[in-house]
Amino acid sequence: MIEHITSKQNPLCKHVKKLRDNRAYRYAQQEFLADGTKLVAEALKWGRVNTLILREDVRMDALPDALRTVIVPRSIMQELSRMDTPQGAIAVCAMPDQPAFSPRPGTVLLDGIQDPGNLGTMLRTADAFDVPLVLLSGCADPYGEKTVRASMGAVLRTPPVQADWAQVRQACEALQIPVCATALTETAKDIRDIDLRAFLTVIGSEGQGVRPEILEFASQTAIIPMSERCESLNAAVAASLVMWELHNKR
Amino acid sequence: MIEHITSKQNPLCKHVKKLRDNRAYRYAQQEFLADGTKLVAEALKWGRVNTLILREDVRMDALPDALRTVIVPRSIMQELSRMDTPQGAIAVCAMPDQPAFSPRPGTVLLDGIQDPGNLGTMLRTADAFDVPLVLLSGCADPYGEKTVRASMGAVLRTPPVQADWAQVRQACEALQIPVCATALTETAKDIRDIDLRAFLTVIGSEGQGVRPEILEFASQTAIIPMSERCESLNAAVAASLVMWELHNKR
Repeated sequence: MIEHITSKQNPLCKHVKKLRDNRAYRYAQQEFLADGTKLVAEALKWGRVNTLILREDVRMDALPDALRTVIVPRSIMQELSRMDTPQGAIAVCAMPDQPAFSPRPGTVLLDGIQDPGNLGTMLRTADAFDVPLVLLSGCADPYGEKTVRASMGAVLRTPPVQADWAQVRQACEALQIPVCATALTETAKDIRDIDLRAFLTVIGSEGQGVRPEILEFASQTAIIPMSERCESLNAAVAASLVMWELHNKR
Repeated sequence: MIEHITSKQNPLCKHVKKLRDNRAYRYAQQEFLADGTKLVAEALKWGRVNTLILREDVRMDALPDALRTVIVPRSIMQELSRMDTPQGAIAVCAMPDQPAFSPRPGTVLLDGIQDPGNLGTMLRTADAFDVPLVLLSGCADPYGEKTVRASMGAVLRTPPVQADWAQVRQACEALQIPVCATALTETAKDIRDIDLRAFLTVIGSEGQGVRPEILEFASQTAIIPMSERCESLNAAVAASLVMWELHNKR
């Protein structure tokens, strides 16, 4: 099904811009955007594309016959995409079902990660290292277009679960899952000396780190040892090292 | 020494914009910019600030008396800074002397890293994990303001050395330093099973990976094992894991 759209007033254009800019609208519609040829290919592979928008000079191979494909001129693509250099392919994707909220040892809770690039990178790493479950509390929207782009489609493969700390805490108490927070405390252990597979591990925000109420509840704190010259690592790098160490034990 | 500047035509404003935008000019002047309060504090700590530019509403404590400090109105700061939300402090810094080109085992060569954010993040990690020497070939400029920002000032603490592959290859041959390339080949070993301290390790570019001519020369290739679902990690994350594993052996 191939259509051509030439007017920016078309309802599809408005829909796409709202999906791009409005978090509540994404959840109401249960749709989000994958912007860029690689991401679109990934979304097609996982059968999640509701509508494919292609710039008139872009071809994609082996599109399913039944797929709604909309061809647009350069000017419209420029308006729909937030990329500096739009690649000419945007997919409107169906949001995956949220996996059940079932915290277990090996779970990673990302708390308050506000930068979409950092959040996306963390989700990409979590997917690569088979983190059993990623919980998000107070984070940027995993289905925001920047996050989806930085995740390289990880949200399509292993969707995170949104939860709040009260809920997580309750579950950890009920199921007796110990909590490990990544934070510099007097009793913090070198991350290489802890088997994170036994814990639910909390990674805090870029600026503030893990919140006091979570720190208080945690039975263990872990640090990544580094040079004294250095204050910290990039947040996505630090989280990735934690996930690597979690995956690493064998 | 406190001055006030109110005109955008002032030579200092022109100088700062050229340092920001022009790589050749940075090297000719042997100066670069640190934009943001934390970075400026770091540059002050390392005694590398030639001129400090402050927005009129910004105060910084304990400035050296002899420091040339220039107060500017909001409109000028807005024009000098490339940050979305300028923090109101920019330091014109003296470029550190390049350390000697002295490849040795444990050296990391970053080859063709074009994204300033990724390059800066890699330099930040290298500094945190005491990588003995970082070589750059065909990378973005480590003294570009975006790179400096992403490095959180690592270039001030442990400056990288710029070199080209022919030079590195020659040195490795002469000194008999084996080269390990991070790449997916048939004989690639799990990164955990290689002691990278014995090698010069090459990390390739975001899109292309390690160049064929380097791959051919390398006596070892290493991979970061990950889920089959996943094509790759973020480049800065992958490089950081390599540096962590290098640091990690004990």
